[in-house]
Amino acid sequence: MSGSIFGSVFKVSTFGESHGPAIGCVIDGCPPNIGLTADDIQFELDRRRPGQSSVTTPRKESDTVEILSGVFENKTTGAPIALLIRNADQRSKDYSKIKNVFRPGHADMTFHEKYGIRDYRGGGRSSGRETACRVAAGAVAKNVLKYFGIRCMAYTDQVGSIKANTFNENEIENNPVRCPDPVAAKDMVRLIEDLAKDGDSIGGAVTLLIQGAPTGLGDPVFDKFDAVLSHGLMSIGTVKGIEFGEGFGAIVMKGSNHNDVFVESNDGISTKTNHAGGILGGITNGQEVRCRLAIKPPSSISKSQQTVTKDGVQTDVSVTGRHDPCICPRVVPVVEAMAAIVVLDRLLIQESVSLVIPQ
Amino acid sequence: MSGSIFGSVFKVSTFGESHGPAIGCVIDGCPPNIGLTADDIQFELDRRRPGQSSVTTPRKESDTVEILSGVFENKTTGAPIALLIRNADQRSKDYSKIKNVFRPGHADMTFHEKYGIRDYRGGGRSSGRETACRVAAGAVAKNVLKYFGIRCMAYTDQVGSIKANTFNENEIENNPVRCPDPVAAKDMVRLIEDLAKDGDSIGGAVTLLIQGAPTGLGDPVFDKFDAVLSHGLMSIGTVKGIEFGEGFGAIVMKGSNHNDVFVESNDGISTKTNHAGGILGGITNGQEVRCRLAIKPPSSISKSQQTVTKDGVQTDVSVTGRHDPCICPRVVPVVEAMAAIVVLDRLLIQESVSLVIPQ
Amino acid sequence: MSGSIFGSVFKVSTFGESHGPAIGCVIDGCPPNIGLTADDIQFELDRRRPGQSSVTTPRKESDTVEILSGVFENKTTGAPIALLIRNADQRSKDYSKIKNVFRPGHADMTFHEKYGIRDYRGGGRSSGRETACRVAAGAVAKNVLKYFGIRCMAYTDQVGSIKANTFNENEIENNPVRCPDPVAAKDMVRLIEDLAKDGDSIGGAVTLLIQGAPTGLGDPVFDKFDAVLSHGLMSIGTVKGIEFGEGFGAIVMKGSNHNDVFVESNDGISTKTNHAGGILGGITNGQEVRCRLAIKPPSSISKSQQTVTKDGVQTDVSVTGRHDPCICPRVVPVVEAMAAIVVLDRLLIQESVSLVIPQ
Amino acid sequence: MSGSIFGSVFKVSTFGESHGPAIGCVIDGCPPNIGLTADDIQFELDRRRPGQSSVTTPRKESDTVEILSGVFENKTTGAPIALLIRNADQRSKDYSKIKNVFRPGHADMTFHEKYGIRDYRGGGRSSGRETACRVAAGAVAKNVLKYFGIRCMAYTDQVGSIKANTFNENEIENNPVRCPDPVAAKDMVRLIEDLAKDGDSIGGAVTLLIQGAPTGLGDPVFDKFDAVLSHGLMSIGTVKGIEFGEGFGAIVMKGSNHNDVFVESNDGISTKTNHAGGILGGITNGQEVRCRLAIKPPSSISKSQQTVTKDGVQTDVSVTGRHDPCICPRVVPVVEAMAAIVVLDRLLIQESVSLVIPQ
Repeated sequence: MSGSIFGSVFKVSTFGESHGPAIGCVIDGCPPNIGLTADDIQFELDRRRPGQSSVTTPRKESDTVEILSGVFENKTTGAPIALLIRNADQRSKDYSKIKNVFRPGHADMTFHEKYGIRDYRGGGRSSGRETACRVAAGAVAKNVLKYFGIRCMAYTDQVGSIKANTFNENEIENNPVRCPDPVAAKDMVRLIEDLAKDGDSIGGAVTLLIQGAPTGLGDPVFDKFDAVLSHGLMSIGTVKGIEFGEGFGAIVMKGSNHNDVFVESNDGISTKTNHAGGILGGITNGQEVRCRLAIKPPSSISKSQQTVTKDGVQTDVSVTGRHDPCICPRVVPVVEAMAAIVVLDRLLIQESVSLVIPQ
Repeated sequence: MSGSIFGSVFKVSTFGESHGPAIGCVIDGCPPNIGLTADDIQFELDRRRPGQSSVTTPRKESDTVEILSGVFENKTTGAPIALLIRNADQRSKDYSKIKNVFRPGHADMTFHEKYGIRDYRGGGRSSGRETACRVAAGAVAKNVLKYFGIRCMAYTDQVGSIKANTFNENEIENNPVRCPDPVAAKDMVRLIEDLAKDGDSIGGAVTLLIQGAPTGLGDPVFDKFDAVLSHGLMSIGTVKGIEFGEGFGAIVMKGSNHNDVFVESNDGISTKTNHAGGILGGITNGQEVRCRLAIKPPSSISKSQQTVTKDGVQTDVSVTGRHDPCICPRVVPVVEAMAAIVVLDRLLIQESVSLVIPQ
Repeated sequence: MSGSIFGSVFKVSTFGESHGPAIGCVIDGCPPNIGLTADDIQFELDRRRPGQSSVTTPRKESDTVEILSGVFENKTTGAPIALLIRNADQRSKDYSKIKNVFRPGHADMTFHEKYGIRDYRGGGRSSGRETACRVAAGAVAKNVLKYFGIRCMAYTDQVGSIKANTFNENEIENNPVRCPDPVAAKDMVRLIEDLAKDGDSIGGAVTLLIQGAPTGLGDPVFDKFDAVLSHGLMSIGTVKGIEFGEGFGAIVMKGSNHNDVFVESNDGISTKTNHAGGILGGITNGQEVRCRLAIKPPSSISKSQQTVTKDGVQTDVSVTGRHDPCICPRVVPVVEAMAAIVVLDRLLIQESVSLVIPQ
Repeated sequence: MSGSIFGSVFKVSTFGESHGPAIGCVIDGCPPNIGLTADDIQFELDRRRPGQSSVTTPRKESDTVEILSGVFENKTTGAPIALLIRNADQRSKDYSKIKNVFRPGHADMTFHEKYGIRDYRGGGRSSGRETACRVAAGAVAKNVLKYFGIRCMAYTDQVGSIKANTFNENEIENNPVRCPDPVAAKDMVRLIEDLAKDGDSIGGAVTLLIQGAPTGLGDPVFDKFDAVLSHGLMSIGTVKGIEFGEGFGAIVMKGSNHNDVFVESNDGISTKTNHAGGILGGITNGQEVRCRLAIKPPSSISKSQQTVTKDGVQTDVSVTGRHDPCICPRVVPVVEAMAAIVVLDRLLIQESVSLVIPQ
C-alpha cells in the first residue's frame, strides 16, 4: 500500500535510505530451481554503480550485495530471496545546509508534507539510491528469463538534442553513455562534460527492447502489458514520459498506416510492421516490444537556485556534492531491471491462464 | 490477477463483453455517506455514448445504468456498489466474416493465442465497450472527489496535425471533438469527416488536468502518483503514450530550466513554474497535475487490409459497421474517469498515512 | 480492502443487500475452456435455497441465476464471469420496528458504528443472503476442480448435543439436515422443529472433506493451506471455530501419537494415519483434508430479548418473520463453495511455482 | 502470492531459513512519527527466544535485531522498516542424517514435492524459526497500538490435560509456561519435563485477548475481523484450531442463550455478556476480543519413529538435537505479535472508511 512492494506473483519489496545502514529487497515468488549466485546480481549492480565513468557522479559506492536467503547450493528454492547492500559510507556528514531547505526538483517538500517527518540525509527514502534494489531484483528476474530466451535490453538514444543515428548493439556497453551509435556517443559525452563544468545537467531518452517474449503476456482491461510496464517504468524517479511503438507519432497517423498487417511466416502468424510496439489489446503479439522513455535532467545541480525553507523563508540553494549531470547511462540498467521484473511477473501469471486442463 | 480489477482501496471490478447480455462493474471500498444517484452516473455515460455527434460512430447504444447495490436512500453505505448496463442490441448478427479472421490492430490474434478460445462477437472482452464501465465507476469517484474540491478534466488538444491553439474551458463541451479551441475544433471535425468518408481513421492527443489535489498523494518508489496514473491511463486501449509536465520536452532541457523554483505564497509553499506537472518524487505538490496522452487512430477501418485467418491463410478484411474515425472525443470522459478512480484511491490510501496519532 | 473481494488468482467480488434490487458476484481469473452453464450454478443455489425443507426458513426466494459474461457457447473464455441473482421479493415491507433497534447477535450495531449509515432492510449487506453469491462462485470453482478430480464435500455432524455416529455419504442429501447418519438425522430434525416451535434456535457442527487435492497446495509462512482455508470459512457469518485433523483434540496428545508416520504405497509416499488433517507445514500432503466447523445458533429468534435502540433507549425486540432455527443444513453448500474457491485459487497459484523451466 | 507477505496496509514481508545467513522482515505501511527503538523489538524477541527456561529448547540463539531502515532519530518515517536478525550459529553441522529422510509431522515431504528442491538444514524455510520475524514485526505494531490504547495479550491456558483454573494476569510472565494460574503452571512444568525426559512432546492451548479495540474494525463478508485474525493465527505452524467467544461450545447452545443482550452504559452501548468474543457480523463491537488456539505437540521428538526416505525406502528416524517438548510458552509472544499485526492493519484500513467528508 505504501508503495515499496511491486508485482503480483514475483513480488519485490524494497527498503532503505540513502544514508541509513543498508538498502535491499526481498523477492517473494521466484520460481525454484533457478541458478543464482551473488556474482549474477553484482554484475548488474556494477552497471548501475556511481563512479564508473567520466560522465557519472564520482561518488564511491561499492554496492556489494549479499544473498541472505532463498538460495541453496546456488539454486533458488522458491523461498523469499533477501538481498542486502550495506551503505558503505554513512558517515555523519554535515546536512545542516539542506536540513530545512527544499531543493527544487526534489521530493524534500512533498515528503515533508506527506509524512510530517523526513530523513533529510542525502534524500533519504526519496534518493535515487533505491534503484539499486530494483537492479538487484531485476538481476534475479533476468536469470529466470534467460531460461525462456527472453531478454530486456535498454540504451540511451538521445542526450539533449543529440540523437543516436545508427544502431550497433555491441557498441552500447562500449561507451560511457550506453549509446548504440559510437559517433553520437562521443558528442553526448562532450555535452555532458560541458554541462557538468557549468554546474548544470541535461535530459535524454532511453529506449527499451524486450526480445523473445511469447505471445499472450499481459491481461485485458486494467493489467495490459503496456499498462503494467508503464507503471513499473514511470515509477523510476527520472522518467517523465513513455511511449510504445509509434507512440506520440501515432497522433498524426491514419489507421490504414498504423495498423500492422498480419502475415503468415515459418514461425506462425506475425506482423509485417511493428507500429504497435509488440502489443495488441494489451497482450504481447510475439513481436519485439519497443518503448521509449523521456528522462528529465537531474535536479541536483550546483548552480545556485532560489527556494524556500520548510518555514517558508526565501533562500538560495546550491546542491554541492558529486552528482550525475545526465542520468541516462545509469538509468539504462534500472530500466532493464524493471522490465525484467514486469515480464517475469506476467509470465508467471500466464501460467494460471494456460494451465493444462485434464480431459 | 486477470486484469479486470483496479485499485487498492477504491477497488473497481469490471465485466462484460461487447455483445453479451450486459456489462458492468462492482466498486468495493467507496466511502459511506456520499450522495449518489443513477443520474450522476448516466450523465457521464452519455458523454461517452456512441452516436452523440457527427464525428462519432452512429451506432445506437443507450447505455442505461442501474444501481444494484451499495446505495440506500441516495447515499452510499460503504457496501459494494454494483452497476449494470444491459447491452441493448445483442441480436445475433452475422459474425461469420470475422469469426476466423484476425483484424489488424485488434486483439483478435492475441486473445486467441492467450486463451485458446474467443468470443469474437464485436471484439468480445477486448472491445472498447468495456470503457463504459470505467466511466460508470469514475462517475462514482467524481462524486466523492467533489466533496474534497478535486476535479479531473480532460480535452482533445490535437487531431492529426491540427492542434488547439487557445484554451477556453467553456468551449470543451460545446463542440463534437471536445476541444478548448473552437477554431481548431472546426478543422478537426472537417478532417475527421473527410477520413470517415475515405474509410480511414486518425490519431490525436488528449490532455488531462487534475485540479485541487492536496499535497501528499502518491507513494514513494513503485506507487508514485505518476506511475499509478500511468497504469490506469495506459490501460485504456487506444493510449500509446503518456507524458507529465514537460514530458518528452524534458529531453532537451537543462536542470536549471526544468527545476521548478519554490516560492512562498499566501496559500503556503508553491512553485513558480510547473515543468514537473504537479508531481515531485512521485508525490503531488499542490500544483495542477498535467499529463498528455497519445491516442492512436482507431483500428476499425472499412478500407480493405491484408491479413490472415486463425489457420494462417492469407485473406483481406474490411471492418464494416459503424466505427469512430477518431476516438479522442469519446476517450475524454474515459480519461477523466480513470483519473478520478486513481486520485480517489490515493486519497483514501493517504488516510492511513496521515491518521491522527493520539498523544 | 473493504472485504467483498476474495482470492489471489481466482478472485471473487460479491455485492448486494438482502432487500436491494439484486445480489451477485464477478469472478476474475477463472481458467478458459471450462464447461459451464447456468444449470451448474443453479443446482448449487438450490441446495442453499430457503424453503427447501421443514427445518429451514419457509421464506420463498427462487434465487435464479443469470450468467452475464465470461461464458461463450457454454465454455468459460478467461474473461470475468458475472453472475446475477435478482431479489425476487423486495417489496417495501414495514421495517420501522427494526430501523432503530439493534437486534442481539446481529451486526446492526457494529455496521451503524462502522459506517454511520445502515441499510436496515433485512440486515442489508450483513444479511446471510450474501452467501448465495459464494455458492454461485463456488459452483464455478467446483466445475473447474472436477477436471482435476478434486472434490469438496461437507455435512452436518452435530446439532445441539446430537452427533452423527455413522457415516454413509449417500445419506447426506437424503435428509433435511444433511447428516450422513440417517438415525441421528431424525433426532436432529425433531430437535430443530421443537426449538422452532419455541421461538428459539440451536447450534451445530459441520465437517468438510477435501478429496483428491494433489500434494503441494498452500504456501509457506502466512498463506498456509489451513490458514487461507480458515480465512475463507471463518468469514461465513455463523462459523465461530475451526479445527483441522485432531484439532482441539491435539491439546492432550503426545508428539509420538500425533505425528503421522510416513509409509510407501503404490501411489507413492503417504501417511499411516491422518491426525494432521491432510496438511503438513501448511502444504497439502496428498491425504484427505479434514476440518470441522462450530456453527452458532442463529441470532434471529422470535423469543423476546432485551436490547437498546441506536439512541441508547432500552427496549425489547422479537425477530419475527421466517428464520432458520438451525443453519447447518443450509451452511453445508456454503462451506463446500468457499472450500472450492480456496482450493482452486491455491491450485492456480501453484502453477507459477511448478512451471516447467526449459533446460 | 508465495505466502511470505501479510497485510493490506501494514504489510509484513518476511524472509530467511533456519540455517542460512539471516532471517528478517520488511514492513511497508507503518505510520510515521511513531517512537521505535531496537530495544522495543528486542524485548519481544527475548520473550520468544529459545533457551529462556527449563521447559524450552536449550538451543542458544541470541536473536539480536538490527533496524536497517525506516526509523530516523528514534521515530518511524513512513518508509519501509527492515529488521535483520543474523543466524548466530550457522556452522555446517552434519545434516546427512535428515537430508533424504522425511521427518514425521514436519514439512520435509511437502516442501520436497512442492518445490522439487529443499534446504534441509534445520527445516530451512519451514522451520519455526521464521516466527521470530513475526515477533519483530509484531513489536512494531504493538508500539503503534499503544498510542491507541489497544493491547494484545496471550497466555497458556492448558498443557496436555492440565488446565489453568484461575486468572491472574500478573502471573503470566512469572512462570516458564506463561500460565495465569501459578498452581497449574507448576503441574504443567512437571508434565513437560517428564515428557522431555521421555523424548516425547505434548500439546496445549493458548488464549488471546485483545483489549481496547474500538468498535468498527473488520470488514464485511470476506475480511471479517475473526476471518482475518484466523488467517494470521492459523498460519502459525503449530496451531491446529481456533475458536472465538463460546466457539465450539456454541454447538450445544440455543440462540436465546448465545445472543449477547445490548445494554446502555456510561461508555455507550455495550453487551451484558460476551459469548460472541467481541465480534458481531465480523466487526468488533467494543468488547474484549477473545479467542482460543489449539497447539499441537511439537513434531521434533527424539523417540524413534518409522518413516521413509525421499526415494521411498522405509527407515527409522529420531530427531536428535535440542527441541521444545511443549511450544506453548514460546508461541504466546508469536500469537500476540500476529494479533497486533492484524489489529493494526484493520485499524489503518478503517481510516479510509471513516475519513472526514468535508461538507
